[in-house]
Amino acid sequence: MKIFEAAKAPIQWEERNVTAIKGPGGRWMIPPEAKESMNKNKIGLKGPLKTPIAAGHPSMNLLLRKTFDLYANVRPCVSIEGYKTPYTDVDLVTIRENTEGEYSGIEHLIVDGVVQSIKLITEEASRRIAEYAFEYARNNQRTSVTAVHKANIMRMSDGLFLRKCREVAENYKDVKFTEMYLDTVCLNMVQDPSHFDVLVMPNLYGDILSDLCAGLIGGLGVTPSGNIGANGVAIFESVHGTAPDIAGKDLANPTALLLSAVMMLRHMGLHGYAKKIETACFDTIRDEKVLTKDLGGNAKCSEFTADICRRVQDMD
Amino acid sequence: MKIFEAAKAPIQWEERNVTAIKGPGGRWMIPPEAKESMNKNKIGLKGPLKTPIAAGHPSMNLLLRKTFDLYANVRPCVSIEGYKTPYTDVDLVTIRENTEGEYSGIEHLIVDGVVQSIKLITEEASRRIAEYAFEYARNNQRTSVTAVHKANIMRMSDGLFLRKCREVAENYKDVKFTEMYLDTVCLNMVQDPSHFDVLVMPNLYGDILSDLCAGLIGGLGVTPSGNIGANGVAIFESVHGTAPDIAGKDLANPTALLLSAVMMLRHMGLHGYAKKIETACFDTIRDEKVLTKDLGGNAKCSEFTADICRRVQDMD
Ligand SMILES: CC(C)[C@H](C(=O)O)[C@@H](O)C(=O)O
Ligand SMILES: CC(C)[C@H](C(=O)O)[C@@H](O)C(=O)O
Repeated sequence: MKIFEAAKAPIQWEERNVTAIKGPGGRWMIPPEAKESMNKNKIGLKGPLKTPIAAGHPSMNLLLRKTFDLYANVRPCVSIEGYKTPYTDVDLVTIRENTEGEYSGIEHLIVDGVVQSIKLITEEASRRIAEYAFEYARNNQRTSVTAVHKANIMRMSDGLFLRKCREVAENYKDVKFTEMYLDTVCLNMVQDPSHFDVLVMPNLYGDILSDLCAGLIGGLGVTPSGNIGANGVAIFESVHGTAPDIAGKDLANPTALLLSAVMMLRHMGLHGYAKKIETACFDTIRDEKVLTKDLGGNAKCSEFTADICRRVQDMD
Repeated sequence: MKIFEAAKAPIQWEERNVTAIKGPGGRWMIPPEAKESMNKNKIGLKGPLKTPIAAGHPSMNLLLRKTFDLYANVRPCVSIEGYKTPYTDVDLVTIRENTEGEYSGIEHLIVDGVVQSIKLITEEASRRIAEYAFEYARNNQRTSVTAVHKANIMRMSDGLFLRKCREVAENYKDVKFTEMYLDTVCLNMVQDPSHFDVLVMPNLYGDILSDLCAGLIGGLGVTPSGNIGANGVAIFESVHGTAPDIAGKDLANPTALLLSAVMMLRHMGLHGYAKKIETACFDTIRDEKVLTKDLGGNAKCSEFTADICRRVQDMD
């Protein structure tokens, strides 16, 4: 919020708590004030949430994605100058189907000791995410889309997903289309990520691959994420942990949340503000003088933030 | 075979073709001569196979694993001195449940455009693979086993797998047990693989993670693999592609198959021969003088092999 203020980004914030509450029927739900705010504003920015399995309620991350039908999970991974990793030329985007697949939540006990989970793939969701990926590629000056699948094993489900990708590709002759097995993508990714551009895939594969790719550029502390639905509805979020060990100590690294907020500005068409804030953030990191601990420095969160604010103001 | 001969390894080979054939009832099957040979000898060494989706028959790799109930897929990944990758201290083993999970092959069309694939997890297979992993750790001087899962999402199926791992861990107090989400493992793996030791996981996760890890040490061309069943039955295999573009040109890199054969020797208790051949292979690679093209050299397969043979003979 401080950085947005420094940049004079025209955003009015409504703060809402999204901690799960138990509804009248005993069902876990999003607090009504949070839901109403999202319904009204259509755009959200969310910090990390933790869901211990023991909590007994579903992940609120997932419930939010489901409730607002945020069907595309978009995570750009771009190498950050000044933040050293074994890879220097990562510049790719993972686009993950965000509503079905292995995340359907349908599981059964067949007989004692035998359990099945159902992976649900639909034509509609597959076409929708494929279209999103190709539109994204076209609108973001990207040249290729790779469909990631295991249709050699899951011939019907991943087969359907892949078929829809192929069909949609027909309408985007300006974008190169390739298809690859998930295992092959993982192998090639760690050997040379620079070959990849836009990748589109079912839910679980996206969960895995987006984390892998985040690892290549420095981890979830520097990787933004957006959950996009129809009609402009979207929630942007940092997807790292909640780091309870440093809570309240002014030590957190706000980069992932800030870069998610930058994605949000772009989503709203506020490209000038987005560029300004993004540039300031990357400049602070490249400069290596004021960095939080996890980035290799000694600065507090507030000092890191202040450095970015200063740079943003200097640009005016 | 040449290297085994040079090492005087006491192995008698029976060569069998495992190309899928159509049985009397129209079902695809393993040729009977191959099946009989495996039933008699219990141990197999297999080159790579290709199954184009269009072939219309199941992957023979999978059919072999199923037919002989080879429930543990074991892939050691160790950094190879002299073969440069961004990582130098990888020394881990992925142990993949090899018979069920997402590879159950059960899929349905629910209604037009809606498909489900079933992931099947059983108590028995989960306990069996967990026990294999802990036994492996104990017998191979390894200190920790990590269970890799998504029980936050697939609470029943991965939950069952995880519960069995925890139970088995109770019987192996000498081995450290940890559990991690698959996405977190992928992220940490590309950031610092040196922390990992033995990893155990359901089928699909193993497919993905074993390829990722192979990528860290140089790819499938240098990574051995074993499929282990009960009562000593096992098939060792290289899991790279068939490289049809260089077929018959004496250009293939035999390392993955050779190291798989070394795993086979160890499995048979022939540790001296295993050590000798493995050392010769790694010495040839470290020496960098006689390397196949994919390893960065100019040697033919036969020259690379001859160099290893010479070293093996020099050890006598
Ligand atoms: C928090 C968890 C439920 C979530 C997921 O599995 O999708 C996370 O890993 C992510 O990638 O956003
Ligand atoms: C060939 C293919 C069916 C197989 C798999 O998916 O298991 C391969 O990728 C492997 O890892 O052995």
